[in-house]
Amino acid sequence: MTTFAPSASPVTVVGLGLMGQALASAFLAKGHPTTVWNRSAGKAGELVEAGAVLADSVESAVEASPLVVVCVSDYDAVHGLLDPVGASLAGRTLVNLTTASSTQARETAAWAAGLGADYVDGAILALPQAIGTAEATLLYAGPKSAFEKHQATLQALGETGTVYLDEDHGLSALYDMSVLSIMWGVLNSFLHAAALLATANVKATVFAEMATTAINVTADYVSAYAQQIDEEKFPATDATVNVHVGGMRHLLEESEALGVSTDLPRFFLELAQRAVSDGHAEDSYAALIKQFRGRAA
Amino acid sequence: MTTFAPSASPVTVVGLGLMGQALASAFLAKGHPTTVWNRSAGKAGELVEAGAVLADSVESAVEASPLVVVCVSDYDAVHGLLDPVGASLAGRTLVNLTTASSTQARETAAWAAGLGADYVDGAILALPQAIGTAEATLLYAGPKSAFEKHQATLQALGETGTVYLDEDHGLSALYDMSVLSIMWGVLNSFLHAAALLATANVKATVFAEMATTAINVTADYVSAYAQQIDEEKFPATDATVNVHVGGMRHLLEESEALGVSTDLPRFFLELAQRAVSDGHAEDSYAALIKQFRGRAA
Ligand SMILES: NC(=O)c1ccc[n+]([C@@H]2O[C@H](COP(=O)([O-])OP(=O)(O)OC[C@H]3O[C@@H](n4cnc5c(N)ncnc54)[C@H](OP(=O)(O)O)[C@@H]3O)[C@@H](O)[C@H]2O)c1
Ligand SMILES: NC(=O)c1ccc[n+]([C@@H]2O[C@H](COP(=O)([O-])OP(=O)(O)OC[C@H]3O[C@@H](n4cnc5c(N)ncnc54)[C@H](OP(=O)(O)O)[C@@H]3O)[C@@H](O)[C@H]2O)c1
Repeated sequence: MTTFAPSASPVTVVGLGLMGQALASAFLAKGHPTTVWNRSAGKAGELVEAGAVLADSVESAVEASPLVVVCVSDYDAVHGLLDPVGASLAGRTLVNLTTASSTQARETAAWAAGLGADYVDGAILALPQAIGTAEATLLYAGPKSAFEKHQATLQALGETGTVYLDEDHGLSALYDMSVLSIMWGVLNSFLHAAALLATANVKATVFAEMATTAINVTADYVSAYAQQIDEEKFPATDATVNVHVGGMRHLLEESEALGVSTDLPRFFLELAQRAVSDGHAEDSYAALIKQFRGRAA
Repeated sequence: MTTFAPSASPVTVVGLGLMGQALASAFLAKGHPTTVWNRSAGKAGELVEAGAVLADSVESAVEASPLVVVCVSDYDAVHGLLDPVGASLAGRTLVNLTTASSTQARETAAWAAGLGADYVDGAILALPQAIGTAEATLLYAGPKSAFEKHQATLQALGETGTVYLDEDHGLSALYDMSVLSIMWGVLNSFLHAAALLATANVKATVFAEMATTAINVTADYVSAYAQQIDEEKFPATDATVNVHVGGMRHLLEESEALGVSTDLPRFFLELAQRAVSDGHAEDSYAALIKQFRGRAA
């Protein structure tokens, strides 16, 4: 038997996949009376042993707590589970940690408003094993009052990494995508570099230290360029787009000569050359923001 | 008049563009007797005021010091300047800080060996204004003995950032390209993210803080993946390639829906899907290394 701290507010977790189980465990670990439910049976065993209550229906799961956290594969699954029990959500707060697009998040907010429920959309920037530790970042967007009402409970998932973004429900999804995009950008470049250096028998682990320095240095550029983007002015206080194009040509030639894939340097070069064609040869790299905006087909 | 420290060894700088001038200033600032030369006249004024000697020919510039540093636009310019004075290079150390490919660096090493000169190839990871400060990183490759003979002098350019890599002359160029590739990867992703977030009126400067965190977190992944690459084993202890593909689809759909360029998400997705086709669906992202290696056309 677990004894619950009298101040720890009850919470329900719907969806007990890898992530849902991690969320429920973290709530239990902080002493929150935790009710759980999952579509297919058999996933609540360890949680029940740790003190969770397994509800006998989605409806009774939702009705067990003022705060309902849902984390399933996608928004179709969210609606499949919760549409039939919409009436039970009235007066409660639904926190949806299922990965989504900003459009889906905003649509779901409208749906929840129609039911008289408070709705907070969230995004998890962490692996299941990091939930509840200092490594986890979770982003929340929606009415600040609803977030604040349950902030103490949500902090069980990430003590220092619980971030409220904005009233706009779409922002947790947008930040989530943005952060992932940065991750893919770094990883692809690192893999390309590792392939280049392997031609000279340099191990990836040997390069990793300098790569880390390079990654951290780039973080400084990002802050400077962010200011240029907001001001829509791109003075080349460091290198011009033309200088970058020269460097990218070097990377392309180097890759070609060493028999390494040319996809990444070609992608870089074409993008920067488009900026040159648009008149940004002598501007800073931040001027490439225009290549990323509104090129809708 | 500048008084030179008796221990400070003389050095010659050939090429007084933005970077060459910064190099010569940094040598002068540390008290090295500094001889300079540039193709077109009129670029040595400030340096001469600061104590530099302007040589009256490339030949006398080269003959003034045991260490000759050249930094011009490209290797054609290097050869244009130094081929005619090859005999004067015998017995000296030539440090070439002109940006190049690894092939050019190795060819130039062979050329210098033929003249009886020691040759060190270098790459500058810094803007001219950072030369001589803690912000500057300079990479050197070639005979370690030649580097060490002049290390104390070269440290005038970057006290803490003077890095000797390897006997292979090509490595400063390869590391240079690798670091730049990481920079472009980060910057492109940041610009894409800024374009996405702008659709919800989030300023780039507001996102920059979280972007910095994301960038630094990715640095940790790089170390873990480096080990997998060296071992050629890709266990998905975190997300599988399939999970990444799902996330990339989200990014693509989100970008499409918001009228932001789809080039970057499409590039990410095609690359990851190729890895899936090659049988890496359940591996870690590091398995994409195979997509970067040897796709020579
Ligand atoms: N795992 C991670 O590293 C990670 C990190 C960040 C974010 N996330 C996000 O967290 C969410 C859950 O991920 P996960 O790792 O827990 O996935 P998972 O292990 O595959 O679990 C999926 C969950 O969704 C349920 N589900 C799927 N389709 C359903 C439907 N039609 N009706 C009812 N329930 C349905 C599953 O129920 P059954 O057990 O009955 O199949 C299960 O509870 C996803 O949006 C994911 O993007 C995951
Ligand atoms: N600036 C940076 O931020 C930076 C950063 C890292 C690395 N680098 C590298 O440093 C090197 C020099 O860059 P920089 O910024 O100093 O360029 P720059 O300001 O354009 O200066 C170019 C230099 O090269 C000389 N030159 C060009 N063609 C020549 C030729 N055919 N014969 C003789 N001299 C010739 C120029 O002489 P004239 O004055 O007679 O034209 C001038 O001294 C490049 O390889 C660059 O990639 C620069």
